[in-house]
Amino acid sequence: MEKQRIRFDVNHMMAEQIGERGFTEQELTLAAPKAAEAFRYVRENRGKDMMGWTELPYNQNEVVESILQTAQAVRERFDTFVVLGIGGSALGPIAVQQALNHLHYNELPKEKRRAPKLYVEDNIDPERMAALLDVIDLKTTCFNVISKSGSTSETMSQFLILWDRLKREMGDKAKDHIIATTDAAKGNLIKIAQQEGFTRFVIPDGVGGRFSELCPVGLLAAAVCNVDIRALLAGAAYADELASTDDIYQNAPLMAALMQYLAMQKGYNISVMMPYADSLKFIADWYCQLWAESLGKRYDLNGREVFTGQTPVKALGVTDQHSQVQLYTEGPFDKVITVLGVEKFHAEIGIPEGCADIPAVHFLCGHTLNELINAERMATEYALLKSGHLNQTILLPEVNAFTVGQLMYFYELETAYCGAMLGIHTFDQPGVEEGKNAAYALLGRPGYEEKGAELAQKPGKQDRYII
Amino acid sequence: MEKQRIRFDVNHMMAEQIGERGFTEQELTLAAPKAAEAFRYVRENRGKDMMGWTELPYNQNEVVESILQTAQAVRERFDTFVVLGIGGSALGPIAVQQALNHLHYNELPKEKRRAPKLYVEDNIDPERMAALLDVIDLKTTCFNVISKSGSTSETMSQFLILWDRLKREMGDKAKDHIIATTDAAKGNLIKIAQQEGFTRFVIPDGVGGRFSELCPVGLLAAAVCNVDIRALLAGAAYADELASTDDIYQNAPLMAALMQYLAMQKGYNISVMMPYADSLKFIADWYCQLWAESLGKRYDLNGREVFTGQTPVKALGVTDQHSQVQLYTEGPFDKVITVLGVEKFHAEIGIPEGCADIPAVHFLCGHTLNELINAERMATEYALLKSGHLNQTILLPEVNAFTVGQLMYFYELETAYCGAMLGIHTFDQPGVEEGKNAAYALLGRPGYEEKGAELAQKPGKQDRYII
Repeated sequence: MEKQRIRFDVNHMMAEQIGERGFTEQELTLAAPKAAEAFRYVRENRGKDMMGWTELPYNQNEVVESILQTAQAVRERFDTFVVLGIGGSALGPIAVQQALNHLHYNELPKEKRRAPKLYVEDNIDPERMAALLDVIDLKTTCFNVISKSGSTSETMSQFLILWDRLKREMGDKAKDHIIATTDAAKGNLIKIAQQEGFTRFVIPDGVGGRFSELCPVGLLAAAVCNVDIRALLAGAAYADELASTDDIYQNAPLMAALMQYLAMQKGYNISVMMPYADSLKFIADWYCQLWAESLGKRYDLNGREVFTGQTPVKALGVTDQHSQVQLYTEGPFDKVITVLGVEKFHAEIGIPEGCADIPAVHFLCGHTLNELINAERMATEYALLKSGHLNQTILLPEVNAFTVGQLMYFYELETAYCGAMLGIHTFDQPGVEEGKNAAYALLGRPGYEEKGAELAQKPGKQDRYII
Repeated sequence: MEKQRIRFDVNHMMAEQIGERGFTEQELTLAAPKAAEAFRYVRENRGKDMMGWTELPYNQNEVVESILQTAQAVRERFDTFVVLGIGGSALGPIAVQQALNHLHYNELPKEKRRAPKLYVEDNIDPERMAALLDVIDLKTTCFNVISKSGSTSETMSQFLILWDRLKREMGDKAKDHIIATTDAAKGNLIKIAQQEGFTRFVIPDGVGGRFSELCPVGLLAAAVCNVDIRALLAGAAYADELASTDDIYQNAPLMAALMQYLAMQKGYNISVMMPYADSLKFIADWYCQLWAESLGKRYDLNGREVFTGQTPVKALGVTDQHSQVQLYTEGPFDKVITVLGVEKFHAEIGIPEGCADIPAVHFLCGHTLNELINAERMATEYALLKSGHLNQTILLPEVNAFTVGQLMYFYELETAYCGAMLGIHTFDQPGVEEGKNAAYALLGRPGYEEKGAELAQKPGKQDRYII
């Protein structure tokens, strides 16, 4: 297989092209040691602590075998596959499914789909659960419950609801409808899975939620839906190989991280990801978690308050040209815009002859949608350049499992590098605890009485501030 | 009908609750004249120029009749209804459909749906067009082409492609498959519609794309899918009625605008909308256009460069607690977070007994998902408060046509007020032109040779900046 390489184009980030707000080569040269230091840090910590994700392209031969076997069994037996998970357990599976399968996958006839329908349930809205139950048949549905600890309230609530219904409807056979993806030994879900005899997959140590797409968390759903998971991993390995130097002009994620780091120092507190392809739409959602949770931190490694973090924003080209680009071209100089472009789409749609008497429409005839979407992408890049708004482009030769795996690993590396430059704990998420604990207290979980008392002491709301 | 009122709670914006980063009453009192001035400006300009949208709740009796008749005819005759539009022509229809219809509407059996499937095609990705053609049958599909000018390249390309296929498949009957929503007299689409004999609806003057949901642009698709469009408009009228005073403690959108305006002055350049309900997920997308295109402006009314505009961000509760809330609670003090809450959902799902030996899971049993989602909402509001991050809540008694119409008009008013405070042209979008023109030049549209020459003169890209 020819290794299709993603290209990262930073021309429109450079002063030579964009003017004074851009980077000069001198500036990058001065900052190169910072990049080299981050590169070393990430290399030296590969596979350690919470950096187990770096090894996923290499250490999963047996796991992949097992996933492929299970996936085939699921395809033979079930019409529907439902992922119960939230955060990284959902965003990766959604992103990969949208990228690599038919854009109306669930609506295809079964014989064309050749795999179960896929639902990823990442919320606890009661209307959504009711809506799901309206369109699936439990008898032909397999649920993949994903939680490392088994204490994720949202996922465990979903599990309790569906497990109860499965047991009532199917008795002893209920257990064959659940696959648990969880820790190898610790936590609640592994305990339940062992007690009940569920099929199990392991979330390896050192792989946090937002870095888990390339472990069984993401690979199982992808394999069930006939995604080539070996190619996903090969693409990730290729991204890793390409990033084996501390030269920013050769290591694209390192250059990307350095530029974002420098931009953040200059007050660019927003990072927009704007794919020009519906297939990549949810890669932007996946990126938003990766970037926000990894870099949004109150303290640095020395315990100093830094309140750092760029706010990631997802947009879709060309759609959001008619929603966000007015702001991007005329608004404040506070964002770095990363465009994702695709050179070759899997379909070509020509614009036929018509409206010969209307020049403002007729000029479109004879072109293809493929030409149109890429012309609009380049035009937007140009408009951003001309208005002095920093923008860069990641170009995928085409969207396939190899390039998507490559893209995801690219962003995981960029995130790790940027966190190292910022000197923060990239792989934890302590800020989520406060809300979790308050919710436990509100729901009366034993052990959270103190938090309950704290909540009760909060100053009362003023009626006049409720309009 | 009891008028269900949306409530706007700004307690967590006030210094009394959130500490030094909050607003004091004195500060609001000092700024009240600014609010009153914006209120007067908006009231005095109601119905004029591009503020025709203010009158939509009142001046559409006949139009609504006609829409309801057409909608019934569409339901009787077609299995699928496809909106061809982009920007405001798509975001409103998508938002209302998600809010008021089944969350898996297109997957329901026809007898349960009692209306055609709905697709809103707001991109020109060739894979998406191919995917659409895979799942619809042209013979039973009605297309609603929406463009005021008929020169929107994206929509007109889609039209050319589908019109050609319809004619080839159905000959003279093809015209019965198209409904054009466009200007009454000017532009290309009305010309085509008249030539071909399409059914037509009018986009009134003074109603820009992002303010068009409550005119035929949005009402037709909604009515086809059995949304109570009279209740939508009644809700909008109620929001208007509630906003008939310049007292910020009584006029919620005016208070909302004032706080955002003041926050922007203090450097809060990000506005997050975070609904805690899947049904409201795409209201956030609709809001993102409204806010970004209206306030993202280079010049003020006096022609001074201001580069103004808050970047809107969409998030979904509780889902994004596991993606964005780490950043929101620990990251920079650069965003105002607006939570949308729902008091009463249309379904109640209990969490049954289970896992009695696992306290960390068992405490959930006996609660409902309804309790859980709202406890998590309040917990997030509390975590944001405690970390000093500005947040406010809009509470809907329930999600229905009346409250959704009310919510949309609330935001339209807030946007108009905030634009007036900023002293900008709220209702235009000049920044979109540059990209449009560049795309025309790249596609060889006659008359854009000069832009083409400009593009050709742009400094060439350096290979070393492509990694």
